[in-house]
Amino acid sequence: MKITLHHAHEARSMRVLWLLEELGLPYELQVYDFFDKSLRSDSYLALHPAGRVPAVEIDGQVMLESGAIVEYLAERCADMGLGRAPQSDERMAYLDLLHYGETLGQHLANLTQAHIVLYEPWMRSPTQMGLETKRLAKVLGRLEQLLSDGRDYLLASGFSAADVAVGYGIWLAPRFVHLDALPHVAAYRARLITRPAFAKALPPEGARRIYTQAFYEVPNV
Amino acid sequence: MKITLHHAHEARSMRVLWLLEELGLPYELQVYDFFDKSLRSDSYLALHPAGRVPAVEIDGQVMLESGAIVEYLAERCADMGLGRAPQSDERMAYLDLLHYGETLGQHLANLTQAHIVLYEPWMRSPTQMGLETKRLAKVLGRLEQLLSDGRDYLLASGFSAADVAVGYGIWLAPRFVHLDALPHVAAYRARLITRPAFAKALPPEGARRIYTQAFYEVPNV
Repeated sequence: MKITLHHAHEARSMRVLWLLEELGLPYELQVYDFFDKSLRSDSYLALHPAGRVPAVEIDGQVMLESGAIVEYLAERCADMGLGRAPQSDERMAYLDLLHYGETLGQHLANLTQAHIVLYEPWMRSPTQMGLETKRLAKVLGRLEQLLSDGRDYLLASGFSAADVAVGYGIWLAPRFVHLDALPHVAAYRARLITRPAFAKALPPEGARRIYTQAFYEVPNV
Repeated sequence: MKITLHHAHEARSMRVLWLLEELGLPYELQVYDFFDKSLRSDSYLALHPAGRVPAVEIDGQVMLESGAIVEYLAERCADMGLGRAPQSDERMAYLDLLHYGETLGQHLANLTQAHIVLYEPWMRSPTQMGLETKRLAKVLGRLEQLLSDGRDYLLASGFSAADVAVGYGIWLAPRFVHLDALPHVAAYRARLITRPAFAKALPPEGARRIYTQAFYEVPNV
């Protein structure tokens, strides 16, 4: 498999980078700056009409949705055991949690947009920011419940690609919500971020990052 | 398969209802009002901790993510031909488009929140609403390109569950963006909404709807 990943540090494409490292697959990495115009170049727009990351070229075919790429690569590398096949008892939970990664992801994307992209106070709605923060916390409640039986990862059988799809959001979440009320989620996060493959998906020292504050507080209405 | 679908008219759960009709599967339907407190009852929260739709019970197991449910049901009913199996040439495109349904869905959810849920002007950010409208149009550009070779549905081989995942957003889109500049998307939408199974997923006459305006204009900044 010949793989080229188009990536921006700390963006959703981190999911794909992390999974590639978990699978031990060789790949070529193209890094773009989230804030300059490099994702708006004609050559990049030819690959991804909306100018977003990730884009992945796999043997000449292009995929653009991080959840789909994670699902596909885990399925393709079945021997690595990070997918759950259609006949698996865990198939329903696997697919549901893999897609849940983007339910989490969209609240985080909205908060990123409001706190970081819409940088002038008059551009933002503190009501919407407060609502998104509450919705993020509520959506994390599902995981707190799931993990409360003491399991280490989302599926009882162990680490899977669903942990990668969801884990990107779990890594980001404490910049927007405090995890004090979600101890199982906090412990799960600690397990995820100490995985060597996860560490390889982080930006190198000195790289420009999307997230520069430890916590983004919702402004007062 | 014993299936119970928890649904609110015009919400994401419409994807599942539509697919159940396409597959000809028997199901029990529980309808909730999107605007009253019925999704906040203790019994519903026991099923779905975030109080959203859909929730689906399949032979006693619960799934909550519409994209995952659509993918799972199409896979489970392989004979109906609405999925694309791992060994299919269309597998990458199928998964990518199925997940793209929620990329589209999140801009629509944000616009729904800003136009309909945050009903007081001071709660909203017209900047954010304008930005989301532009992002929705940009994301639809991918489909315009894909459909420009004259295909009827997203995959060259014909109608699939990816059309259901994406089609819900295509049905909704013209309430927020004009499709004049996207003629292939408009023609695709016309094909989707005349499918008998789609019509069965619409609210019955007189039911309370989420969307009551033909078009939601972004307020002036």
